[in-house]
Amino acid sequence: MEEKSISAAVIKRLPRYYRYLSDLQSENVERISSDELSKRMGVTASQIRQDLNNFGGFGQQGYGYNVEYLRTEIGKILGLDKVHNMVIIGGGNLGRALAGYANFESRGFVVKGIFDSNPELVGTKIRDIKIMSMGVLETFLKENDVAIVALAIPRGDAVSVAKKLYDCGIRAIWNFAHVDLDLPSDAFVENVHLSESLMQLSYRLNSHK
Amino acid sequence: MEEKSISAAVIKRLPRYYRYLSDLQSENVERISSDELSKRMGVTASQIRQDLNNFGGFGQQGYGYNVEYLRTEIGKILGLDKVHNMVIIGGGNLGRALAGYANFESRGFVVKGIFDSNPELVGTKIRDIKIMSMGVLETFLKENDVAIVALAIPRGDAVSVAKKLYDCGIRAIWNFAHVDLDLPSDAFVENVHLSESLMQLSYRLNSHK
Repeated sequence: MEEKSISAAVIKRLPRYYRYLSDLQSENVERISSDELSKRMGVTASQIRQDLNNFGGFGQQGYGYNVEYLRTEIGKILGLDKVHNMVIIGGGNLGRALAGYANFESRGFVVKGIFDSNPELVGTKIRDIKIMSMGVLETFLKENDVAIVALAIPRGDAVSVAKKLYDCGIRAIWNFAHVDLDLPSDAFVENVHLSESLMQLSYRLNSHK
Repeated sequence: MEEKSISAAVIKRLPRYYRYLSDLQSENVERISSDELSKRMGVTASQIRQDLNNFGGFGQQGYGYNVEYLRTEIGKILGLDKVHNMVIIGGGNLGRALAGYANFESRGFVVKGIFDSNPELVGTKIRDIKIMSMGVLETFLKENDVAIVALAIPRGDAVSVAKKLYDCGIRAIWNFAHVDLDLPSDAFVENVHLSESLMQLSYRLNSHK
């Protein structure tokens, strides 16, 4: 597929285009020039054109972009036209927060189950989703066609759990544990290292005082 | 200060160096060559040398890096040798998760208060931290020397709350709301857009099938 050669930087920007186009659509804007979109998004118009040209363009000289069409196409590139079954490991506050994001489901991310090793949590529910024991994880993954697993557990367990997930066929891990998961190259890991993001703020405060 | 010209990419990598050095230190490793560090971290040794040279080096030919010294110095660059008072806006699951990260405090980030507009939450506590009403936010920020505010509220309110924070003198915002905060350039905003990070996973699943 042609998308394979797209740079990571472009991929990182695509969800933001999708968000702005979704906002425009909910404001009933039918079309927008790259100049107007550039002003809204605070990036240059040439950046927008370049980014979108990676996927074949979508714009028309003198017309601009059709908002609904462009949003749909970017959604397809991002795989948002498909349903992705998801499982959350870790039923603590972060796992709860992730399960609670209603908009995940509106984008096709469906939380099928939550798993925790704490027996006191097993059997309780978050938003009608049962918390199950880690012992039944493997069977559950196979029976529920799970594509994405969110790891919301402490770093101590994350590496071994991730390896187990890989062995069960999971290739997409959304990792909130503060550790790098050393998985084979056909696994996709998206790290959300909260404390590292906080440290960047503290760096900026520190270096500009 | 010399750090001012450091590229955003280098700053993004610094917390990861800090994490690996902290791990090495807890394993009682006293020194490490850039080659060994490079193997551990999965980046090239020349990248490590280049990154650290931005701050004057720290390494010694034939000796490598002194782990404790390098960790301390990177900690100082990241401002981790100082205490940063923090406030969380939003007492929902995400706000709770942020307040619960014990290691924030061990790095000098001290959650002083949590604020929520929901009267049912006001007066309750998360980890001994009181949830207060938005009405007392301004006074609280002034009286408690707050440096960083985490925004864990829905996008609808985030822009106006951020403007208010800026007017109260807050210059560092850790933004979890799914919207861009349009603040003057002397404000530092670190965005954690969870659904955009999830979309990148779905892109990868989609383009490699």
